[in-house]
Amino acid sequence: MISSTVLFYGNYVLCQCLGLLCVVFVSYWNIEWRGGFAWDASFLQFNWHPVLMVTGLVVLYGNAAILYRIPFTWSQRKQHWKLVHAALLLSSLILSILGLCAVFDFHTGYHIPNLYSLHSWVGICTVVLFTAQWLLGLVGFLSPCSPLGFRKLLKPVHAWMGMAIFILSLASCLSGINEKLLLALNGNSNSTAAYSSHPAEALFANFLGVLIVAFGLVVLGILSNQRWSRLEPGEESSRSLLPEDN
Amino acid sequence: MISSTVLFYGNYVLCQCLGLLCVVFVSYWNIEWRGGFAWDASFLQFNWHPVLMVTGLVVLYGNAAILYRIPFTWSQRKQHWKLVHAALLLSSLILSILGLCAVFDFHTGYHIPNLYSLHSWVGICTVVLFTAQWLLGLVGFLSPCSPLGFRKLLKPVHAWMGMAIFILSLASCLSGINEKLLLALNGNSNSTAAYSSHPAEALFANFLGVLIVAFGLVVLGILSNQRWSRLEPGEESSRSLLPEDN
Repeated sequence: MISSTVLFYGNYVLCQCLGLLCVVFVSYWNIEWRGGFAWDASFLQFNWHPVLMVTGLVVLYGNAAILYRIPFTWSQRKQHWKLVHAALLLSSLILSILGLCAVFDFHTGYHIPNLYSLHSWVGICTVVLFTAQWLLGLVGFLSPCSPLGFRKLLKPVHAWMGMAIFILSLASCLSGINEKLLLALNGNSNSTAAYSSHPAEALFANFLGVLIVAFGLVVLGILSNQRWSRLEPGEESSRSLLPEDN
Repeated sequence: MISSTVLFYGNYVLCQCLGLLCVVFVSYWNIEWRGGFAWDASFLQFNWHPVLMVTGLVVLYGNAAILYRIPFTWSQRKQHWKLVHAALLLSSLILSILGLCAVFDFHTGYHIPNLYSLHSWVGICTVVLFTAQWLLGLVGFLSPCSPLGFRKLLKPVHAWMGMAIFILSLASCLSGINEKLLLALNGNSNSTAAYSSHPAEALFANFLGVLIVAFGLVVLGILSNQRWSRLEPGEESSRSLLPEDN
């Protein structure tokens, strides 16, 4: 049991380091090569889009998803941690919606149509599903008048939808970085900076994509390990019968 | 128990229909809008790339992953189904490697550098991990001299790596479709066909992306449901104690 806890915290620290690196890398990319940030419907407003989506929809969301897995929280009242889970996801949702505003404003300013690429289709579906999931979670798990039968029914759907949304957010971010580099580098008249000529920006942003993949796989690894899930009342006997998985 | 089995087969049929639609859509896209197929280092050879990757790395791979979940197989010797699992994955791996050859040959023919985009980085990592996973699975689970302790240690790693590879393959396919449409449509001098003007090809290929997402989520949904996993000797008592999840 001790080794399982130590292994969890090893993964948790790795997850935090990778999440921090994702935020640092996406910010540095947009400061160093894309001109920094503004909120004026220019291409500098667009630069908020990757930063807000990676920070909100990947890093904050991933942290909210694994909150109940932290052994430290198991001895405390679940209601408190439900509120922390909901607050973290609300912050994630607000950052994601701001991230969408950044790109819609930029498109309007430059007369670029919205929602034409597969990246934008997957991305908007992710945020719509996330909004529905958050509202349903609020009604189902935090409302005092939610019946127990409904919570029991909702729980596996909530967990499954949560994982699905996270996988979609990873796919959206990877396709988004790829799309941004193709449009920004190949659309540049200076052909020496084309994506295919491996410029420094492309290598750096591709590496950001690798960091996002690594963060996502660590989060999904933590979620998929049954031994790291919070024990609910009456589950102790079932847990001890699970096959060894390390 | 009957309702759980019926629910499984409902999901399984949905999975087969979505998989078939993915193969039909990716083939039709390349026949109708990309000029069809050849193996002559031309852009017609490139067209094999999406067809082989979606068919091999997504549809065949997903089917191999959920094979042990089919209740029909539970009463039969696992060794036979291990061979079917390995054979399906070998077919998937061969199609994926042929899919990589198609794009490398095309790049060589047109003097386009290889492995510059994030799509290609994620894609090549997926196939390398898949190859390592298949070989390790062969040695660990099909070799008669593999010790029981090693199999026990390998099993959760194999299952986790299998899911990670599938998620990476979904992300690779989505970013790849997005990249192909950006390069093919925006690189075309006829501006009315630009990706952002919502041409029929773009809508069709985006919808292929949606089908791939739907197929992937159904496969991952089947894999994540503990009640649909094959009972191993000694697990009957643990299964009956699992919390209800439907």
